[in-house]
Amino acid sequence: MIDFYFWPTPNAYKVAVMLAEIGIPYRVMPINILEGEQHAPEFLDINPNGKVPAIVDPDGPDGKPIAIFESGAILLYLAEKTGKLLPTDSVRRYEALQWLMFQMGGFGPMLGQAHHFRVYAPEQIDYAVERYTREASRLYKVLDRRLAEVAFLAGEYSIADIATFTWVRTRKMHGQDLQDYPAVRDWYNRIKVRSSVSEALSLLKSDMTWKVDKKSDSWTNMFGAKV
Amino acid sequence: MIDFYFWPTPNAYKVAVMLAEIGIPYRVMPINILEGEQHAPEFLDINPNGKVPAIVDPDGPDGKPIAIFESGAILLYLAEKTGKLLPTDSVRRYEALQWLMFQMGGFGPMLGQAHHFRVYAPEQIDYAVERYTREASRLYKVLDRRLAEVAFLAGEYSIADIATFTWVRTRKMHGQDLQDYPAVRDWYNRIKVRSSVSEALSLLKSDMTWKVDKKSDSWTNMFGAKV
Repeated sequence: MIDFYFWPTPNAYKVAVMLAEIGIPYRVMPINILEGEQHAPEFLDINPNGKVPAIVDPDGPDGKPIAIFESGAILLYLAEKTGKLLPTDSVRRYEALQWLMFQMGGFGPMLGQAHHFRVYAPEQIDYAVERYTREASRLYKVLDRRLAEVAFLAGEYSIADIATFTWVRTRKMHGQDLQDYPAVRDWYNRIKVRSSVSEALSLLKSDMTWKVDKKSDSWTNMFGAKV
Repeated sequence: MIDFYFWPTPNAYKVAVMLAEIGIPYRVMPINILEGEQHAPEFLDINPNGKVPAIVDPDGPDGKPIAIFESGAILLYLAEKTGKLLPTDSVRRYEALQWLMFQMGGFGPMLGQAHHFRVYAPEQIDYAVERYTREASRLYKVLDRRLAEVAFLAGEYSIADIATFTWVRTRKMHGQDLQDYPAVRDWYNRIKVRSSVSEALSLLKSDMTWKVDKKSDSWTNMFGAKV
């Protein structure tokens, strides 16, 4: 059974949706990032970068255990392990990989910065709010143009959609409204009704607190970790 | 022959090093990002996200042309096309993919933000400079711990090293000094002597200007693009 190191963040939800989609047995190993559990030495042995998600699969390549971190790598691993949610056609497969990379490298990191400066930063910094909200809008427009042409990012539903969907969920934190992006809105509505999404969103729901006071230890654990 | 849409940036240099490593014929198609050429409709047909690098390979899967954007996807495509610089052993391959994702999702976007606030932002914003310089240092420490254990990120030299190397090159922009990261320094010195690196760094060298005045059109083209 796969150990899934999880806390309810957009990156960790990607893997939660994927695990539900492929229907593989797993157990949730909560890593409370507000409590700083991501910095514990035993977790750093699994992900040296100290972030959720990560997985340990006791039945990895050649039947040996494998630990994987970075949500994009985990999605790719699970897709290849099960033969699901990555197109088999070569051209479609590279479309999925490039939109996955677009999410990993831009539509993710930059939305995360918008979230930080709009919600978490202890001071209002107009330049940064404006910089990242503008970049978020630009990235949404790129996505909207793509999804006006195809039902899913690689033509068929794939790990690229899963990776992007969990970030669109938190669009209010990035100053975005789906009314401005009709093709993204339609695509979002097609995905959110999937049972995998409900299953993923139910994980740890009763345990979750997500209030980060700006002067609390939670804030320091999330944003002020010593280097 | 592969068309390589290039301007001398860390992400585009990744592909330049890769093309030199695999020894495949290509021609450089300059996209002057200071002049705003990345926003031209004909380039957006190749990369709808309006960034370098991108490639068009007339001899793609099944012999049909393919366009690929996102440096991480291009590296993976070229590695799979040629059977080079991606480990064949499954465990090593996923190590390469996860460190590639680490570069794409963190050691890249966050260093880019450090560069922006340390060099390009029109005002000094201490909170942002401190935030991103601290994150850059943290990411370097993650890298340094990994490279103290292995000669290359996936054990053998791979696309994960290429992707990371071209960002370490510009470390001064991120407030980093290799003296603080001895394992990264040794790894960096092993890679920088490769002929692929010299070949990549020579591209467009005579055409290159890289002066971005904060009140110029160049600045607006790079950072102020309309959405």
